[in-house]
Amino acid sequence: MEKRDSNASASAFHVPEWMIQFADQKQEFNKRPTKIGRRSLSRSISQSSTDSYSSAASYTDSSDDETSPRDKQQKNSKGSSDFCVKNIKQAEFGRREIEIAEQEMPALMALRKRAQGEKPLAGAKIVGCTHITAQTAVLMETLGALGAQCRWAACNIYSTLNEVAAALAESGFPVFAWKGESEDDFWWCIDRCVNVEGWQPNMILDDGGDLTHWIYKKYPNMFKKIKGIVEESVTGVHRLYQLSKAGKLCVPAMNVNDSVTKQKFDNLYCCRESILDGLKRTTDMMFGGKQVVVCGYGEVGKGCCAALKAMGSIVYVTEIDPICALQACMDGFRLVKLNEVIRQVDIVITCTGNKNVVTREHLDRMKNSCIVCNMGHSNTEIDVASLRTPELTWERVRSQVDHVIWPDGKRIVLLAEGRLLNLSCSTVPTFVLSITATTQALALIELYNAPEGRYKQDVYLLPKKMDEYVASLHLPTFDAHLTELTDEQAKYLGLNKNGPFKPNYYRY
Amino acid sequence: MEKRDSNASASAFHVPEWMIQFADQKQEFNKRPTKIGRRSLSRSISQSSTDSYSSAASYTDSSDDETSPRDKQQKNSKGSSDFCVKNIKQAEFGRREIEIAEQEMPALMALRKRAQGEKPLAGAKIVGCTHITAQTAVLMETLGALGAQCRWAACNIYSTLNEVAAALAESGFPVFAWKGESEDDFWWCIDRCVNVEGWQPNMILDDGGDLTHWIYKKYPNMFKKIKGIVEESVTGVHRLYQLSKAGKLCVPAMNVNDSVTKQKFDNLYCCRESILDGLKRTTDMMFGGKQVVVCGYGEVGKGCCAALKAMGSIVYVTEIDPICALQACMDGFRLVKLNEVIRQVDIVITCTGNKNVVTREHLDRMKNSCIVCNMGHSNTEIDVASLRTPELTWERVRSQVDHVIWPDGKRIVLLAEGRLLNLSCSTVPTFVLSITATTQALALIELYNAPEGRYKQDVYLLPKKMDEYVASLHLPTFDAHLTELTDEQAKYLGLNKNGPFKPNYYRY
Amino acid sequence: MEKRDSNASASAFHVPEWMIQFADQKQEFNKRPTKIGRRSLSRSISQSSTDSYSSAASYTDSSDDETSPRDKQQKNSKGSSDFCVKNIKQAEFGRREIEIAEQEMPALMALRKRAQGEKPLAGAKIVGCTHITAQTAVLMETLGALGAQCRWAACNIYSTLNEVAAALAESGFPVFAWKGESEDDFWWCIDRCVNVEGWQPNMILDDGGDLTHWIYKKYPNMFKKIKGIVEESVTGVHRLYQLSKAGKLCVPAMNVNDSVTKQKFDNLYCCRESILDGLKRTTDMMFGGKQVVVCGYGEVGKGCCAALKAMGSIVYVTEIDPICALQACMDGFRLVKLNEVIRQVDIVITCTGNKNVVTREHLDRMKNSCIVCNMGHSNTEIDVASLRTPELTWERVRSQVDHVIWPDGKRIVLLAEGRLLNLSCSTVPTFVLSITATTQALALIELYNAPEGRYKQDVYLLPKKMDEYVASLHLPTFDAHLTELTDEQAKYLGLNKNGPFKPNYYRY
Amino acid sequence: MEKRDSNASASAFHVPEWMIQFADQKQEFNKRPTKIGRRSLSRSISQSSTDSYSSAASYTDSSDDETSPRDKQQKNSKGSSDFCVKNIKQAEFGRREIEIAEQEMPALMALRKRAQGEKPLAGAKIVGCTHITAQTAVLMETLGALGAQCRWAACNIYSTLNEVAAALAESGFPVFAWKGESEDDFWWCIDRCVNVEGWQPNMILDDGGDLTHWIYKKYPNMFKKIKGIVEESVTGVHRLYQLSKAGKLCVPAMNVNDSVTKQKFDNLYCCRESILDGLKRTTDMMFGGKQVVVCGYGEVGKGCCAALKAMGSIVYVTEIDPICALQACMDGFRLVKLNEVIRQVDIVITCTGNKNVVTREHLDRMKNSCIVCNMGHSNTEIDVASLRTPELTWERVRSQVDHVIWPDGKRIVLLAEGRLLNLSCSTVPTFVLSITATTQALALIELYNAPEGRYKQDVYLLPKKMDEYVASLHLPTFDAHLTELTDEQAKYLGLNKNGPFKPNYYRY
Repeated sequence: MEKRDSNASASAFHVPEWMIQFADQKQEFNKRPTKIGRRSLSRSISQSSTDSYSSAASYTDSSDDETSPRDKQQKNSKGSSDFCVKNIKQAEFGRREIEIAEQEMPALMALRKRAQGEKPLAGAKIVGCTHITAQTAVLMETLGALGAQCRWAACNIYSTLNEVAAALAESGFPVFAWKGESEDDFWWCIDRCVNVEGWQPNMILDDGGDLTHWIYKKYPNMFKKIKGIVEESVTGVHRLYQLSKAGKLCVPAMNVNDSVTKQKFDNLYCCRESILDGLKRTTDMMFGGKQVVVCGYGEVGKGCCAALKAMGSIVYVTEIDPICALQACMDGFRLVKLNEVIRQVDIVITCTGNKNVVTREHLDRMKNSCIVCNMGHSNTEIDVASLRTPELTWERVRSQVDHVIWPDGKRIVLLAEGRLLNLSCSTVPTFVLSITATTQALALIELYNAPEGRYKQDVYLLPKKMDEYVASLHLPTFDAHLTELTDEQAKYLGLNKNGPFKPNYYRY
Repeated sequence: MEKRDSNASASAFHVPEWMIQFADQKQEFNKRPTKIGRRSLSRSISQSSTDSYSSAASYTDSSDDETSPRDKQQKNSKGSSDFCVKNIKQAEFGRREIEIAEQEMPALMALRKRAQGEKPLAGAKIVGCTHITAQTAVLMETLGALGAQCRWAACNIYSTLNEVAAALAESGFPVFAWKGESEDDFWWCIDRCVNVEGWQPNMILDDGGDLTHWIYKKYPNMFKKIKGIVEESVTGVHRLYQLSKAGKLCVPAMNVNDSVTKQKFDNLYCCRESILDGLKRTTDMMFGGKQVVVCGYGEVGKGCCAALKAMGSIVYVTEIDPICALQACMDGFRLVKLNEVIRQVDIVITCTGNKNVVTREHLDRMKNSCIVCNMGHSNTEIDVASLRTPELTWERVRSQVDHVIWPDGKRIVLLAEGRLLNLSCSTVPTFVLSITATTQALALIELYNAPEGRYKQDVYLLPKKMDEYVASLHLPTFDAHLTELTDEQAKYLGLNKNGPFKPNYYRY
Repeated sequence: MEKRDSNASASAFHVPEWMIQFADQKQEFNKRPTKIGRRSLSRSISQSSTDSYSSAASYTDSSDDETSPRDKQQKNSKGSSDFCVKNIKQAEFGRREIEIAEQEMPALMALRKRAQGEKPLAGAKIVGCTHITAQTAVLMETLGALGAQCRWAACNIYSTLNEVAAALAESGFPVFAWKGESEDDFWWCIDRCVNVEGWQPNMILDDGGDLTHWIYKKYPNMFKKIKGIVEESVTGVHRLYQLSKAGKLCVPAMNVNDSVTKQKFDNLYCCRESILDGLKRTTDMMFGGKQVVVCGYGEVGKGCCAALKAMGSIVYVTEIDPICALQACMDGFRLVKLNEVIRQVDIVITCTGNKNVVTREHLDRMKNSCIVCNMGHSNTEIDVASLRTPELTWERVRSQVDHVIWPDGKRIVLLAEGRLLNLSCSTVPTFVLSITATTQALALIELYNAPEGRYKQDVYLLPKKMDEYVASLHLPTFDAHLTELTDEQAKYLGLNKNGPFKPNYYRY
Repeated sequence: MEKRDSNASASAFHVPEWMIQFADQKQEFNKRPTKIGRRSLSRSISQSSTDSYSSAASYTDSSDDETSPRDKQQKNSKGSSDFCVKNIKQAEFGRREIEIAEQEMPALMALRKRAQGEKPLAGAKIVGCTHITAQTAVLMETLGALGAQCRWAACNIYSTLNEVAAALAESGFPVFAWKGESEDDFWWCIDRCVNVEGWQPNMILDDGGDLTHWIYKKYPNMFKKIKGIVEESVTGVHRLYQLSKAGKLCVPAMNVNDSVTKQKFDNLYCCRESILDGLKRTTDMMFGGKQVVVCGYGEVGKGCCAALKAMGSIVYVTEIDPICALQACMDGFRLVKLNEVIRQVDIVITCTGNKNVVTREHLDRMKNSCIVCNMGHSNTEIDVASLRTPELTWERVRSQVDHVIWPDGKRIVLLAEGRLLNLSCSTVPTFVLSITATTQALALIELYNAPEGRYKQDVYLLPKKMDEYVASLHLPTFDAHLTELTDEQAKYLGLNKNGPFKPNYYRY
């Protein structure tokens, strides 16, 4: 669910500061005692694993049950207790959620059908660490249908849907996850996935890199049997490129974050909708006539700008990259420096992947009632820390909405405390999750079945043909009819009729 | 000016049919006698060199002078006769045109200023073969100002502006080009550029590949001194990749056709405007409420669809590539097979780069008054040949507009006889030409100054940093203000403050 | 907040069926005993007064206090008990809400300032019946500042914000309203507003016509002193035109529902945003690529279509009026009959003001997961009653979201049980409420101060100049700078420099 | 073809300056000798009659024939000489043009069919004064088919298509018009239409008011038999309202200029396309990224703004009317005073209907290469006269394009010398002309057949039902399917199933 930095480079050739910090953390990590307290862990857990997360409402809601799942004895109806969830009794409700999700994930269901005969994942032992939602459940059960054995933990301490985890456990999946884990719980769950007698994973599906990290540090020998890693997030991908650069990556890894479909759908198309949704749900504002500055014109920025322009806002853009800047011009946006418009805008939206894009100085100059939010990256883009000073008053007016009040009475409206608006204040459509999940499944199949030598100990993008296949599986949703090349046309173009249809450098 | 195939792959890894034909032609070419007639040449000239071309009106227009320039004795005011143009006396008028173009090409003018001190092209001997227009003249005089010596021919037998050629000749540029060359003239001009005593080119700037081709065949030894080739067109780039694949490319070549700025501006942004312009100028039709099918959703198709949707047309899209198809869906277009809508649409537009996308069968089924045109590639997309049958009547109703009339009275409106609408029936904005020309200049500088070994005998894309530099030179046109990274931000992102800002695979 | 029928005529020259029903009800109404039970009233209360209503969350929420406000003894801090609200102690919280609303209603605040000196409502005794929200409070306190005395009841049994009512009562406004009134309470509150010793209203501000209706039936003599009625809703305006037509309207009435600003802002611009908001909040769906049919292309339909098209949906339109139909065509929408597309669409949205636009037959033919909602009028547009049959299963999946399940497993997703999506599932921006409230204030001032004879016993539209004034008061919100005519220009155009600027028939 | 003032009021209640001037002219007019020279007439001819006019290219072009048509003796093939055209021999070519136009005017053709049986214009003697084009010919022949006798003159001295006039004369229509009339010719032609023995008109179809004016002054007694006037232009309508106001209008008149379809199609939808077309044809500029200021946000301004925004321009708006100003805000345009942006914009477009909107002072401050053009009204909006001063140099660079050069070398690009860009530099789609012509035909039928007393000596708008009928006749062009009300729905809405569907004040 994380977003590819739009404005920033995710270049594999540089070592950004935060990665260096991360490297430092790992050193500290090694010194850690086995029984780790919350404090000592706080810097080594990935940022994404503690992001606030607004999942679909949990229908059965919080029981008053305060017992930690780790202290409970639970068994599913088949007698297995190889799992740890909040409450196995919620399984039925979770099953219904999964069934609804199945209806909206036709690509995975089609994959189940098409690939079921040959069981392309027969023998695969997949350990996974992702958000645990109904959509993930559909992915896991698809992997199972394709022949794989799976063990699963959550990649975020808040995002697990307990009912879904229960349903998976009831179906026999060893799931270790619940909503509201402590950081100690977090690592305990991951460890329970991998540290099990008589079972060793040969594939990793990771979201954020924490699982990969754990195995590297605790069970490096496991990599001897592991055929590959599939990683979805920007953060995890960065970590992998760093390992690769440092010569420490010992298995092939697939960067599915940068696949075309994920980039365009997760970022451009999804943000085009979620910026409107996030702003409306939090502020009920009217978009028409509002002046907005969007920092960064990558895919996320492009989506935000297009949506707001369409709703009648007047949009300014800031950029550091002259090519993206020129695109903004041609798309009809005034390209400015933030300082030029900061006094006049009604909304400030960051989508840069950078840090301190909005500084205290900017915040000081904003006009009364200005709304500030972050669509880009983690919680670094707005210097929220600078607002935690005695002369400013914070007033929580709604969930995820704070008024920060200056001594002269000026208020700015800060959303989600500067964390990602689209994760915190809107929901991600199942359709987008379906694309991501299908990509993950195909990447696992590719890595698992690749002939010896096709993939080295490096980070790869998904083969274009697979990217195209993911797209083709989603076309029926739109009742879309693809044209097929005639033999004559394929010959003329020098293409295989089944693709791939574009050179690797094609930009879409 | 040619357009990158949108739908088709320009893959370097396949050998399309037409390239193989081209290879055959070259063999035939070798057997040719020195004095070649029009007929024998007709297959070996590149397609683009005979495309019809709608340049800005020539103000001094056709003199009645029917003498071939090759038979004239002309000198410029400095006494030189090392050129061949229609009429050297038109120089003054051409100079005014060049001056107007200079005003609209601020990037090249800035380049002159910035690089003039160091003369980065000092010693360069550039032979060029491009359209000869006021904009090209600004490029040539910029190259001169940077230290280069230039000799130039036209890449298209129709596109030369005689006044501009005269002005260049008057200024001392050996130019060999006029409007309405025969094919024999065409090669004669090219030969005059390269086959000159005491001067040997060390750089090639080509558009279409004919110049490169000629040197390969006639003066292969010249390549010993040539530092590199810069090629702009799809066709020329294909030829280069083919040479490279065949191991016959003996100098580095720069593919500027696939640079980001060229792709996005020449295709997406330029076609967004030229589709409307081309249709209006030829048919005066109203766009609102019209049903349109656009074949191909590459950059060109995306531009056409966006423009027509914005003008109130109802747009259908056909595609062969599932990723582009999914983009069309998300952008709000019904994805269909051509057959599904062919009976109901008012306009058919091809942007595929493919052949026979619109067949006689499709044409038979179109409704009365349906407009058919090609925005994609050469003249292959619509099977125009199939309309040259006795039962159909052709009626020329305007320049570039034919009614083809069926026996039952049904008419379809065929534009530009199926050749490129945007070349034939609209003009290319100077701003776009400025981007292309600046890219060419930078590519020449890069190749000429690259340290030994940076470039091998292969085809390269322009380094991203140069692409970014071209963009940055054009931002002042829009009064656009770029943001600079702070040191802290650059460190955080692991980027150099001056770029490049994106990894090579970034899609924009 | 009600919306002007988009597709239907609100013609004053016809007597629609439901008005006749209403006339019948009034007869029955007369026979009613004084102490009326819920049942007997159920048909005489206006539709709008029981519409479900999603106001901003009440922050202090439901106390467990189950005592009816009518049975409580409450006094404000000044000792007055001439009010009836849920809990006077919530006044402070309500005051804060009012203060926040004041910041977003600059036009009313400007009106307070500009008109305060002259007190244009000095002597006015206004009885009002509207939604009681923070925005209404700003209106009431503005009326007070302009010199008026006010007494107020709620026009909807659900929509009162108790804290705001408390704050108004605390400030000395006799307010009779709480959230969750019974229908008996509803009339009791209205009666308490008008039936008071020593005070008789001379102005009416109504929303829905219930207050006017009550005075007509119970205190017809009051009209002798009443200078005019200002009515905001479609329903109330219909009632007034009917009275006028029947010769029974005995005071001038101002139809502010059809003022330009209200029409365009409440309908076109507001719905452009609320359709997206309503759909997202209820279903989390993705708009891109979805096929949608919008029934009715009036202002509401135009807003819905524009928004969905901008988000990448493919939109079809149905219409009965050929002019609106032609507009839909020119705006780029396929004009169809509902039957033509009902099997293929993902979403059905009604905006017609008509009844049974979506019938059971249509519902039977929709595809699985089709979403059905109403943006038009009351709850008549979708024949929801036809879905209450034994073979269909209803499943409430979220607040305002029902799955209706066919025997074969097909589900349709019905939003807000067919009532207004924008009232039930999204919020109305303060900016729109500000326009409406300002219009109401100006209409009251105009009617109250109009010289004898300017207005007869008829229904009037707001004078254009006032409409323009409302607009001008809202321009500063957008930092918009109006151009002034020079004397010469005004003379040339034959206009007064201060307006009105358009003839009455101008369509904007 | 003229456009309804967008920004200005066409109020019937004011007497603008130019109308007063016109009244003065009429006095002078009376004193004129019979044989009038060019000079003396120059102020009494309507502005629109001398507007430059870009009609579709005349295919047979200018013969060298310099003889005035008035001095020629011509007969058609039936022996009649009751006409005066350039060359009767061009009839065949004109007939083909008419036949092509018939294909694109299905509404008139449908009207011929539907109304032919009953001949609703039997007995009508219509004198007309309009542009004489193929489209007008289709109108005239439709009127003939409906039973009317017609005599016709041109309303503009430049706009007549000679071939079409010849074809009409050949078919027996007494037509008096040719391209390039002198002003004396202009009035002579009109006089030949009305001053004929044994024939007296009983209906007038006018465009600009010159014909009406002539009859008023020369043959006032004719009005005794005249049943009504149908007038299309803003200018003519103004004149009629002035007559009405002065109590001098002695027959009913129909203002078809303000019919809904004409307003929306001729202005909003047509200008949305013609602004792009006009700018491209004259300047070949690129729209993307350009800064544009549009003066006036009426229908014309709305169309221009929407089109340019869609093409990626950054658009500012100026307005005098706060309601239109607020619409501009909500549609996403910065509302400014011209002075605020005049230094930075690349294009200035006037659409106000006002005079001197762009003054010399503004022109002095524009930046180099700024393009200035008028989409609004006549030639008054830009103070072009102020540019005719010695220090400025004018350079004609293309047809309709002048560079005006300041002493410091700054150039502005003035299009069409400040006259209407869309008349001068683009063409009007047949579809729009079809709507206008159909409206005119229906207005004639309505006035001719109206029962005694339905229309007084006043100016009327077309009955809404007729407006709806015009629209419905054009729906088949778009394959658009109208929905019909059920009996139950019609009853519910209180509407007739056949319309009218909206109250008169409905704004669309």
